[in-house]
Amino acid sequence: MRGGNWVGVVGRRLRKQASYGSHSTSSPPEYPNILGPNLPDVWTSTTQSHRPQSSGNFSASGNTATIIDGKPIAEEIKFRIAGEIQRMKTAIGKSPGLAVVLVGQRRDSKTYINIKLRACEKVGIATVIAELPENCTESELLDVVSRFNEDPSVHGIFVQLPLPQHLDEEKIMTVVSPEKDVDGFHPLNMGNLAIKGRQPFFIPCAPKGCIELLLRFGVEIFGKRSVVIGRSKIVGLPIALLLQRHHSTVSTVHSFTKNPEQITSQADIVVSDVGIPNLVQGNWLKPGAVVIDMGTNLVKDPSSRHGFRVTGDVCYEEAIKVVSAITPVPGGVGPVIISMLLSNTLESAKRAFGFT
Amino acid sequence: MRGGNWVGVVGRRLRKQASYGSHSTSSPPEYPNILGPNLPDVWTSTTQSHRPQSSGNFSASGNTATIIDGKPIAEEIKFRIAGEIQRMKTAIGKSPGLAVVLVGQRRDSKTYINIKLRACEKVGIATVIAELPENCTESELLDVVSRFNEDPSVHGIFVQLPLPQHLDEEKIMTVVSPEKDVDGFHPLNMGNLAIKGRQPFFIPCAPKGCIELLLRFGVEIFGKRSVVIGRSKIVGLPIALLLQRHHSTVSTVHSFTKNPEQITSQADIVVSDVGIPNLVQGNWLKPGAVVIDMGTNLVKDPSSRHGFRVTGDVCYEEAIKVVSAITPVPGGVGPVIISMLLSNTLESAKRAFGFT
Repeated sequence: MRGGNWVGVVGRRLRKQASYGSHSTSSPPEYPNILGPNLPDVWTSTTQSHRPQSSGNFSASGNTATIIDGKPIAEEIKFRIAGEIQRMKTAIGKSPGLAVVLVGQRRDSKTYINIKLRACEKVGIATVIAELPENCTESELLDVVSRFNEDPSVHGIFVQLPLPQHLDEEKIMTVVSPEKDVDGFHPLNMGNLAIKGRQPFFIPCAPKGCIELLLRFGVEIFGKRSVVIGRSKIVGLPIALLLQRHHSTVSTVHSFTKNPEQITSQADIVVSDVGIPNLVQGNWLKPGAVVIDMGTNLVKDPSSRHGFRVTGDVCYEEAIKVVSAITPVPGGVGPVIISMLLSNTLESAKRAFGFT
Repeated sequence: MRGGNWVGVVGRRLRKQASYGSHSTSSPPEYPNILGPNLPDVWTSTTQSHRPQSSGNFSASGNTATIIDGKPIAEEIKFRIAGEIQRMKTAIGKSPGLAVVLVGQRRDSKTYINIKLRACEKVGIATVIAELPENCTESELLDVVSRFNEDPSVHGIFVQLPLPQHLDEEKIMTVVSPEKDVDGFHPLNMGNLAIKGRQPFFIPCAPKGCIELLLRFGVEIFGKRSVVIGRSKIVGLPIALLLQRHHSTVSTVHSFTKNPEQITSQADIVVSDVGIPNLVQGNWLKPGAVVIDMGTNLVKDPSSRHGFRVTGDVCYEEAIKVVSAITPVPGGVGPVIISMLLSNTLESAKRAFGFT
């Protein structure tokens, strides 16, 4: 992998042995069908056809909600990825590569990138980071992205957002090759996610993590009512599209929805990604619902060492008395999202190398 | 425009003066904002921010529902388009061109194509039709599409569906240049329709016609509950995406939805495109709702001259007693859809020629 050989870009290479150790499985394990089963819509004029209930959702049972802990799942996924990468190295002498592009010196961006780099390192994904100054030109940035597009050792390109105001984020995200768009934000990938039966190269990491958790916890999605609160292109929109591909009946609630609590209270599955602590209160939730809280909000907390704590969009204390299962924040979906980035990068490398 | 210069393809040219006559307006008239206003989602933790109601929807008033007649609107749009094309011809000596691709001899496909060709002819859009035999190879078809992609006199390419089974529809639709994809089905255009703030080159004709009718009849979409029944890539999916861009709260009902009537009965706006006559009965509808019936179904009718008649998905006789406005079938959205194809072709030509 090349890196750091152009003006204004500092490349550094991290290529280490997977710290998860070797994985003895020679064939890839079964992945859950994240895109959902491809079923024709068969309507009848008098009744709707329903698949028989193979398994119910969690039942409402007072305050015995299941806590959907993402950490062990994330660890298990990373372990599996590390094993797959080890198998790839052994078989063809190659590993996946992820290129990260950072413009400017935002501290939070650097923190996020470091978390991703460490995760890559642990599973054996080679990484290269291109750092550009805050005042770089659009053409300099596009040049960096184009080089990564051409580089056969790069299988995923990750442009850290937000970009400085003077850069056209939409344009830059569209220049990332759809085949290396491990974020899944390229409109071609989003379109192929939206259109039933089509296969995007990548599913965005947050929605993929959300569905992964639902599937692993045996939550039935098929035929269930889902409400997605928030409609960002990163989370809300692709989650709604993905839930629909799993044949859920999806409603999207947003800031201009007049009665969000009333609509949300009809849902079997609630996914929230809004950025407002405690927006979703207990009375918004149907007894027995499953809640995936994608919000990550910092709230003041004098009792905490740093003076604040991280919380989601859902009032956890109230929700836990009503719902059948819920993701805590932190520790719910968050850890799984990064493992989805690793998974997308591995998938991309497998495709590039024709490795199965 | 070239046509008919390759084996197995019969090209014919139709290039006539617009029969709508000249249009004296020199600047383009204002188009309604089909993509919806681009507003940031601003949430607050305790209340949802709502735009003040500028105008209410139609009010429920017994059986005095407004009949949304698409024919005069379609005529008005075509008149405007003809005027625009006349203005273009006068100013730069150019006109828009639409290429139609037909594989095989399906009678219904030929009928649809003829309707489109006649509509093009009337407004002054030049057309070329490539007819390929039923047993043509994929590469022959792809070659035809590629030639149209390269042809600067072609601004829109329309591949008539369905294609014979042996041809990969998905692949062929993806080969159509997104900049000439007047159908709006290319995943890149669908992705850009889905992502808030982005501009697809084209909005699919049926959804565009649906929104055009809602806007022209002054139906408030902003903040209203919408239910889209059906989720095809041609109608249901893009309509849901478009209604959401207009800040409606959208639920999509499909064949695996357990209680479609209950969900539909909450909607201020109902759009149906399922293909089941009388699926949507009176008790599915909220009093005062606005109904856009996109279904086109043939039902037996011995009293009719041909032994059948065309009907929509909605039980019109029941609905009209409940709703505030409804599109009849035939004569509602249908006529507007074709004018949207003309509008997309004109838009494309304007873009290509830099003509404003």
